[in-house]
Order: sequence, then C-alpha cells, then structure tokens
Amino acid sequence: MKEVSIAVVGATGAVGSEFLKIMQERKFPAGEIKLLASSRSAGVKLEVNGRKLTVQETTAESFAGVQIAFISVSSEVSRRLVPEARKAGAVVIDDSSAFRMSPDVKLVVPEVNASDLDSHTGVISIPNCSTTPLVMALAPLGRLAKVRRVVADTYQSVAGTGAAAMTELRDQARSVLDEKKAERKVYPHQIAFNVFPQVERFLDNGYTTEEWKMLEESRKILHWPDLLVSATCVRVPVYISHCVSAHVEFDRPVSPQEARQALAAMPGVKVLDDPSQNQYPTPWNVAGTDDVFVGRIRKDASHPNGLAMWIALDNLRKGAALNAIQIAEELLKRNLLPERKVLQQAD
Amino acid sequence: MKEVSIAVVGATGAVGSEFLKIMQERKFPAGEIKLLASSRSAGVKLEVNGRKLTVQETTAESFAGVQIAFISVSSEVSRRLVPEARKAGAVVIDDSSAFRMSPDVKLVVPEVNASDLDSHTGVISIPNCSTTPLVMALAPLGRLAKVRRVVADTYQSVAGTGAAAMTELRDQARSVLDEKKAERKVYPHQIAFNVFPQVERFLDNGYTTEEWKMLEESRKILHWPDLLVSATCVRVPVYISHCVSAHVEFDRPVSPQEARQALAAMPGVKVLDDPSQNQYPTPWNVAGTDDVFVGRIRKDASHPNGLAMWIALDNLRKGAALNAIQIAEELLKRNLLPERKVLQQAD
Repeated sequence: MKEVSIAVVGATGAVGSEFLKIMQERKFPAGEIKLLASSRSAGVKLEVNGRKLTVQETTAESFAGVQIAFISVSSEVSRRLVPEARKAGAVVIDDSSAFRMSPDVKLVVPEVNASDLDSHTGVISIPNCSTTPLVMALAPLGRLAKVRRVVADTYQSVAGTGAAAMTELRDQARSVLDEKKAERKVYPHQIAFNVFPQVERFLDNGYTTEEWKMLEESRKILHWPDLLVSATCVRVPVYISHCVSAHVEFDRPVSPQEARQALAAMPGVKVLDDPSQNQYPTPWNVAGTDDVFVGRIRKDASHPNGLAMWIALDNLRKGAALNAIQIAEELLKRNLLPERKVLQQAD
Repeated sequence: MKEVSIAVVGATGAVGSEFLKIMQERKFPAGEIKLLASSRSAGVKLEVNGRKLTVQETTAESFAGVQIAFISVSSEVSRRLVPEARKAGAVVIDDSSAFRMSPDVKLVVPEVNASDLDSHTGVISIPNCSTTPLVMALAPLGRLAKVRRVVADTYQSVAGTGAAAMTELRDQARSVLDEKKAERKVYPHQIAFNVFPQVERFLDNGYTTEEWKMLEESRKILHWPDLLVSATCVRVPVYISHCVSAHVEFDRPVSPQEARQALAAMPGVKVLDDPSQNQYPTPWNVAGTDDVFVGRIRKDASHPNGLAMWIALDNLRKGAALNAIQIAEELLKRNLLPERKVLQQAD
C-alpha cells in the first residue's frame, strides 16, 4: 500500500494518544507524520512507528504536503483549523461536532455508511461517541424491520470530555475516600461517586446538545430522516467507555433471537448476552477493545414491536480514534485521496 | 400521641441505621424499642432516643408485646420472620420484596396511596427503592392525563444492596486508584469506576426481578392495572441515592409547565429544574434528604404525548426507612394499630 503523509492534530489529547496507538496496531501506512497540538504541548516528544517525533504547535503552515489531517480538538479550534488544512489540500477527518451536520460534510461510521465517502468533499466528520454505538446497533436491526423510535439513556465516561476530566475523576475520588472536599474544575458537579444528567450544554427545548446529536447524527448516518430519538445523556464516574440503554420500536415485532443474529453478523459488533452467566458488556470490560458490544437483548414488555438492549463501546477507540482510522483506510481502499505530488506542486 | 412499642429488625443494616436516625428526627412516639438483628450483630449497643439499647438476636419470642415490627432484611429472612411477628400480634412493615405482590398485602407510599392502609391485614410492604421515585412522580402526572407507558433506566447506588456493598465500592475504588486489583465479594462485576446493567437476578423474559418490580409494584401502588413499564436497572458507583431517567407517554399532550406545577404541588416531591444554572438533582446532592427530586422536565422529542424527566431520591430514606416511618405515622393517625394491652392479654 502506498504511504500517506498525515498530520495528527491534538496528538497529546485523550483521543490523539489513542489514535497513535491504534495507527501502529493496525499498521496504517503512514509515511510522513506530523504531530500537532496547541503551543502548550509543543516540544513534547512521542515515539511513533519507532521514530521519535516532536509535537509542534499547529499553524496554517503545518498542513503543507499533508494528505490526511486527523483533527481531534474542540469545535471552536476545529472551526479555525479545518479550513486551513483544506486550503493546504489535505483531506480532513474531524472528530469535533463543528461540521457534522453541514450538508456537504459526510458523517461516517464505515461499517454503516462507508459508501458516503465516495462523494466526500474534503471534510469528513466522525460522529459523537454516544451516536456511534447507537447507529452500529441500529443499522443491522433496521434491515430486519423499520426502526420508528428509540429511547436511549446513556452512561458516559469522563474520557469523552478529555484527559483533564480523567484527572478530575481520579483526584476527586481520592479526596472523597480521604474524607476531604472534592474540588471541581472541569464539570459543574462532582463526578466522583456521583452521576449527573448533563453532557454538554442545554438547548432551548430542554435537551442537551449531546442528546440532540443522538437524534440528528443518527438520522444522517443511517439515512433515516424520520427516525425518532429521545435521549438523556448522563455522565458517570467511569474513566473509559460509554454505555447506552436503548429501547427500540420497530414497525413490526422483532424477536430477540432475530436481533441477536443480525447484530452478530454486523462487522464491528459483538453480542455479549448470557444472563445465566451474568454476561453483558460493562465499561471496564470493553475499554481497550475495538468492537461495539450488545447485551441484555429482550422483548420490550411495554411495546408490541419493541426490543430493549444495552450497548457499550470504548469511546476513545471505536467512539473516536479507531473510527477515524477506519475512515482513512476506506479512503485509501476506495482511492479517494489526492496524490501527494500534486499537492506539493500546488504549493 | 400514645406511645407505640416497636421492634426494628435489621437494626444494624444500612436501612435499619437510617430508620433509627429518622425515627428520632421525626420524634416518632416510640415507647419500648427492641433492636433486633442476626446473631452476628447481637450485643452491639446503639443509642436511640437518649437510651443505650443492646441489639438482640431475632427469635420467635422477640415480637411479644410489639405493636409495630419494622423489618429490613433479605426476602428469605423476611419470609421466616414476618409470620412470627404476625403471630405475636404485631403489625409488620416489611422492606423486602417477599410479600409485596400478595393480594392481601398493602404496598404503600403514603403520599400516593395511604388510604390503602385502611384495609390492611397486618402486613404492609414498602416498595422497591427504584419503584418509589417513579410512583411519586407518576401519581401527580396521572392526574393531568392518563399515563400509558413509561420507559425508565435507572442509576442505582450500592446502598440499595446494603452496607457490605458500600464497603466493596470504597475498597475497590482505593485499589483501582492504587493500581491494584479490585477484589469482588458482593457483586458479579467490579463496581468501582464501572457500571453494570444488572440489579438482582434474571427472569426468563430477560428482565431482572428489579426491573419487573418497577412494572408490577407501580401498577399496584398507583391502582393502574394497565400501566406499561419497560425498565433497565443499572448499578452505578455511587454510595447513596438512586436516579431514574423516565420517558413518560400520556393519552394526550402534557406540557412541561403543567407537569412542573403538578409535581411541585405533590407532597414529598421537589422540582429542581433550572438548566440555565445546571440545576437538576444528582445522587450526591439528594443523599440525606427526604424528598423525591425531579428535574430535566422536557417535551419528549420522539413522542407527541411524551415527557422526559430525571428523578432522584435518597434510596435509604424515602426509598426505604422514611417510607416505613411514614406508614407507621399513618397507621397511628388513622387509628389502625392494635392496642398494646389487648396484645399482652392475648399472650
């Protein structure tokens, strides 16, 4: 496979670190690798593919000659950097919510809608890490019967917020155990030994932006414009992995057995569902794995066409970094990248 | 008010300790107080109402002369002790699930169905601590419009399992922080920095007994035999307080404003719902309080007649001990207790 020159923006963050790990595990054919971050992290040295690389501050010039820019920073920073990367000719795979709902931006989970990449226009977004587990489970189920409505409550780890939140959980937990006051910096409420029903900010309709993404992004990825989703997104004192309790309503009855078969046949999904052995996914067990795990699959006792289930994934991997790399792999496979030479001549 | 002779069985447990605390806070008119527990806790001394009392092992003779027996032990032990307390003439308020669904046993949350006490037959059950928050919120909402269906996912603290589980969470959390292996004794999975979708044991239909209680007990307490409930009950690494994310479907549209007014007017319910200030109930904040708190009240975006909300309560207090004392207070107020003298003559 041809080598690809890449830039990793946010290389020292929670997702960026995972990205570099997975890239090496999967032997992604990275040629030149630029590690980029804010000025705060500039100078940090990281070993990637046996080479010692220095993290540089991201500037407009950083993207010269880059074929794929992986960007995992805040939406605000993405909004500034993505046009710069595009101007330099790079295809951008962006982890933020900044561009996801733009009509000309593809929002992709490769197992679900890889073919959307064929008409990409240079910026490809990764869905929110609570949307990904949902669409990975809904896609195969939607081939059994039309999915009309989903009620989804989440159990989201602090890794979704970033490395500082992971430190906050650790520090607060130690304070509580030592019977000291837990200090808050990242979150509006204590997260250690607590949960709170707020991920991101509130919209006027009473939902949070995170909850609304589960509706809008799912519709876009699945190409199901009339899908109904009501979510409550909750932060829990877990380091890594998100879980979703999903109650799915179809247009006809779907048996748990049918659902298990369809889910088991879906690439990237594993069914872990043996109540007799207390087997179902938990965040602790799925952290560090690549699949979306589904368990507790049962007939919904409150709806004739309903199924209830429990979905979990490593939010840093399939929820972010792995999904980004899979998109890059698809771009390569489908020959959807600009040639590097052309880019250099254009400079 | 006349004094009542009481026995507290499970006096050294998580609920029993809370019971003794609340009894004193509310100046419950306890005359003779017998503290009872298993042989393991016999001999423990506790101060109650300024008197130093010694915990005794529960035997068939323990209930002689007792007017009200509060029993908070496992269902297995309740099944053995309740008949003994009844034989001695005591009215039993039982915290276990053993008798809740018996047709001749009243299942009572006083704010919701105190009048059921008028026809009690000697054993009164307290609902499961994840049912109580749900019925406290549904009762006032059901006066606005008929409630057809509820989808409810829970976030349940370890206090629901008991004191040993609270120790397990503490010990495991310290082990994880110290990068040691977390030992499991109480739960099938690690609970520190983890969540798992299993509370109690599995039924053949794929639901757990805990989840099924939220359906059956709600129907009984609310006298709504055709209510539909689908629950997923999840244990979270929180010491005290349970939360429920509830998605409620009515037979006509109900506005968040109507719902807030109805909830605020319900005795024992407090609305804590100000997204602009990040205000909603969290387990950490509601622990130690007596009310059921409701927040995140919003129109359900996925159902024309739906509302979504977030409910939290201290599961040891309103979820168990406080509810038991409130039942006893109602029995006194309604003059539904046998006279002590009569009991003694019957001996």
